[in-house]
Amino acid sequence: MKLEQRYEGKAKRVYATANPHEYVVEYKDDATAFNGVKKAQVAGKGEINNAITAHLYPLLEGAGIPTHFLERLSEREQRVRAVEIIPVEVIVRNVAAGSFCKRLGLEEGTELARPVVEYCYKSDALGDPLINTDTAVALGWATEEELTRLRELALKVRDFLTPYFTARGIRLIDFKLEFGRTHDGQVVLADEISPDTCRFWDAATGEKLDKDRFRRDLGGVEDAYAEMLHRVTAPAHG
Amino acid sequence: MKLEQRYEGKAKRVYATANPHEYVVEYKDDATAFNGVKKAQVAGKGEINNAITAHLYPLLEGAGIPTHFLERLSEREQRVRAVEIIPVEVIVRNVAAGSFCKRLGLEEGTELARPVVEYCYKSDALGDPLINTDTAVALGWATEEELTRLRELALKVRDFLTPYFTARGIRLIDFKLEFGRTHDGQVVLADEISPDTCRFWDAATGEKLDKDRFRRDLGGVEDAYAEMLHRVTAPAHG
Repeated sequence: MKLEQRYEGKAKRVYATANPHEYVVEYKDDATAFNGVKKAQVAGKGEINNAITAHLYPLLEGAGIPTHFLERLSEREQRVRAVEIIPVEVIVRNVAAGSFCKRLGLEEGTELARPVVEYCYKSDALGDPLINTDTAVALGWATEEELTRLRELALKVRDFLTPYFTARGIRLIDFKLEFGRTHDGQVVLADEISPDTCRFWDAATGEKLDKDRFRRDLGGVEDAYAEMLHRVTAPAHG
Repeated sequence: MKLEQRYEGKAKRVYATANPHEYVVEYKDDATAFNGVKKAQVAGKGEINNAITAHLYPLLEGAGIPTHFLERLSEREQRVRAVEIIPVEVIVRNVAAGSFCKRLGLEEGTELARPVVEYCYKSDALGDPLINTDTAVALGWATEEELTRLRELALKVRDFLTPYFTARGIRLIDFKLEFGRTHDGQVVLADEISPDTCRFWDAATGEKLDKDRFRRDLGGVEDAYAEMLHRVTAPAHG
């Protein structure tokens, strides 16, 4: 099924297939933080992130958000639509946390009066610097129309996921999305949605159930990821 | 005329007057860079920046851009409308230079396919961090309507100044604006437009005629500022 490797990222490998319009994505256990400076293996992470993404993407499709996801193939692999990744990462924030707090002198957990959408230029060499839509257009990374669509889709993802997680005892603090262009020019949600790419706080205890456990050496990384898989696939309550 | 000091910035002091709707601004010779880490006196800078701003702001008013400027009072002083400064600095870029290049890995002088408008949170303590309009609204620094107006006015300033300087042998590379709210809620251009707040390159030689001479220890700082006063007040040519 898998042909030559097309791309290796920090957490996934992407392979060509016999169908030019499809790829296979393989999830790794590698964890990195601070632009790759901190590295480790998190046992089972690849399987969990594959499973969480494979659970959520069809739900997002159902909510009107086109995605690259086609099907989960194995514990670590999924079949996806072949896309060219748009080099503009989209961050959506419900609550201030992480780099946003550091940059703006805010206490972590500060409620935001409205969701904040930020854009970063996807570049490991530059540390994914913050940009805005003018910059992305001026430097040819995306068109004005694509950026309007990215924002619209990112807010739609937020509007679906925020109550989805609330109903499973999780506060969705923030998350990062990547989008791609299909061969026929459609913009679709790509990459993954997982504890690697979101901040999840337990609604009752405030406990962090995401990659911050790794970034900040809080311990219990594997347990947090396993708990998030459990929550994501659980029925809604309350 | 001047009553108590209301504010002291890195390059100016602002004083109350007997009229509650007017201030007096006094321009200093102090030069700072890298968020105040580098400091010096530039002889004559206060007089030059006062004169350049006093020359340009009435021209901008004529081009439909409301400003705080009322009149030049003396070599270092001007009378302005009293405003509450909106803590969102607006940077307009015609050509990539300075921190923009460093952040995005671009060569200085890279032409931008369109003007780029950036926003920073005005905070010396945080080093004026880059933000976007969502963040400014979410944290209560400006309303959505004010930000729309800021962008519109900033691009109008660019559309006036770029050919103005071209006609005087200067490439306007980028500039930073600050805006304020008057007592009756009008948004007006405040602060100054000078070699402290713009990048000016000689169109023929590429020589820098702005604060980068100070930031980068290029020498000839006073001469560059004097040359810019000369160019700004010269008639158009070509």
